[in-house]
Amino acid sequence: DPKLKVFSLNSNFPLAAEIAKFIGVELGKCSVTRFSDGEIQINIEESIRGCDVYIIQSTGAPVNENIMELLIMIDALKRASAKTINIVMPYYGYARQDRKARAREPITAKLVANLLETAGATRVITLDLHAPQIQGFFDIPIDHLMGVPILSEHFRNRDLNGDIVIVSPDHGGVTRARRMAERLKAPIAIIDKRRPRPNVAEVMNIVGHIEGKVAILIDDIIDTAGTITLAANALAENGASAVYACCTHPVLSGPAIERIQNSNIKELVVTNTIELKDEKKIDKITALSVAPLIGEAIIRVHEEQSVSTLFD
Amino acid sequence: DPKLKVFSLNSNFPLAAEIAKFIGVELGKCSVTRFSDGEIQINIEESIRGCDVYIIQSTGAPVNENIMELLIMIDALKRASAKTINIVMPYYGYARQDRKARAREPITAKLVANLLETAGATRVITLDLHAPQIQGFFDIPIDHLMGVPILSEHFRNRDLNGDIVIVSPDHGGVTRARRMAERLKAPIAIIDKRRPRPNVAEVMNIVGHIEGKVAILIDDIIDTAGTITLAANALAENGASAVYACCTHPVLSGPAIERIQNSNIKELVVTNTIELKDEKKIDKITALSVAPLIGEAIIRVHEEQSVSTLFD
Ligand SMILES: Nc1ncnc2c1ncn2[C@@H]1O[C@H](COP(=O)(O)O)[C@@H](O)[C@H]1O
Ligand SMILES: Nc1ncnc2c1ncn2[C@@H]1O[C@H](COP(=O)(O)O)[C@@H](O)[C@H]1O
Repeated sequence: DPKLKVFSLNSNFPLAAEIAKFIGVELGKCSVTRFSDGEIQINIEESIRGCDVYIIQSTGAPVNENIMELLIMIDALKRASAKTINIVMPYYGYARQDRKARAREPITAKLVANLLETAGATRVITLDLHAPQIQGFFDIPIDHLMGVPILSEHFRNRDLNGDIVIVSPDHGGVTRARRMAERLKAPIAIIDKRRPRPNVAEVMNIVGHIEGKVAILIDDIIDTAGTITLAANALAENGASAVYACCTHPVLSGPAIERIQNSNIKELVVTNTIELKDEKKIDKITALSVAPLIGEAIIRVHEEQSVSTLFD
Repeated sequence: DPKLKVFSLNSNFPLAAEIAKFIGVELGKCSVTRFSDGEIQINIEESIRGCDVYIIQSTGAPVNENIMELLIMIDALKRASAKTINIVMPYYGYARQDRKARAREPITAKLVANLLETAGATRVITLDLHAPQIQGFFDIPIDHLMGVPILSEHFRNRDLNGDIVIVSPDHGGVTRARRMAERLKAPIAIIDKRRPRPNVAEVMNIVGHIEGKVAILIDDIIDTAGTITLAANALAENGASAVYACCTHPVLSGPAIERIQNSNIKELVVTNTIELKDEKKIDKITALSVAPLIGEAIIRVHEEQSVSTLFD
């Protein structure tokens, strides 16, 4: 059997260490630093010839640095005769640039897929792609894991003091809300944003019953937190007894932390696909680990077993 | 005839503007900015359907940001039906990672070539590659321009007060020194660094006659300026009457400016393939423009004429 090796680049070292521990291996020895001029310097410090190599790298901020680290590492592993090069991207950056919404736009999510394949990746493992269609951007196998079971479990074990309702902050997230609702045996509601006329403020309608209920908002990514905090306001104004929120990928850029801090969201539950910098570790935010999920997926891929049963 | 369009990304806007002016076109309208989370957002604000497009982008620091801007721009142009996508990289980042010097190293210069082709580049125009072999990393046409004529011209027009000698700071640069020497009808010398035994300081021998002469050091890249300032010292100690230095690509990272300032180099002549930030604009440094050279190359490529006569 080819040996399994796990390497971490610089984006999310704590998660990589947890994954390696779960699998029961040491992290592979390598140094990923910068030359004086900012170019990436990679030294792989142990043989990987003939091995099944897993690289753990989220492509959150600094996204371009993280993507280039990944591509250069793949190049080095390929030239060092790795048997397979498996990319574990807990968070897939540029996923929102997945179509031409306007003329002459790039489709960067597809470009990233092409770059990874060109560099030499042989498989991708990722979580909650912004659009599941991104799976089709790859010609190599891709395993698409879901954060919903982990997030649902957290709320199941928490005494929420009342009937709950799972809320999607927009139409795009209804499938995700439905999945969580099934797990928690709860109904769903949807925030329906509409601009009555051009240049008039958006109106937030709520489709579904939320009055007197504990509302749990769910999204894939929370970035500047504008959508989620406005949705939380609308829920409170329309009679929800309490508002919680959750997402898989805590991008949390720009004003996000301030907005969450000042919002009526009681608790924001996220996962550690993206490492939270110290200034983002506030009391309101709970981070759950995806290490057991990813670790189990790696073991199954390595043993050529199905990954899909991970969601039962 | 397909229309010629020139676009600039963010690495070297002044050079791009100069090139467009030389050619006699306006720079194409596009905005290259960042989303809140650091992802690159590109809007091309005019039609380029059926056009011959030239993108001006040096991949100096921040190298990874600049490479990703370039790849995403190529993707957008390709999807917007450009006829040809010509990459003008006055400085080619990662050129020093051009071979496996040690086990398990990446060959990032080749990776970058593959990435550019995968994104959709149809031609590359560049200057003074660290190793000319990098031309062979591409399967698309590449035009390789030289800074030597421009640098030589500067010294020819300067009253240097004595016999001159062109000096290569190492064995790798002898061909370049020879080219400059031919243009200036001067002899060459070579700095021959040797470590007599392990863990003993390097000794600088000078091959060639420099005593009483005005020495002009030439290199392709000056990065931390360690090599060039040590070479300048060695030349002075061995009797050169004055020391000048020149290079095509002023990377000038880390301690470079301080070292040059404190060295016995009278003048450092560079080109504007890499834009000098304000803190690097010191009296000792003269920057010559490559805009006429690149502009002329673009015109000839567009008119399907030979570029090689540019060096006569
Ligand atoms: N990093 C980003 N931050 C904010 N918006 C983005 C980002 N990347 C892409 N977008 C835009 O977000 C939209 C896609 O989001 P969505 O409609 O939720 O799928 C597109 O119009 C993109 O132009
Ligand atoms: N950005 C960089 N800064 C400093 N050294 C580098 C850089 N990129 C590559 N190198 C190293 O420089 C050497 C190549 O330089 P050279 O021997 O002059 O061709 C290789 O051993 C590389 O590991």
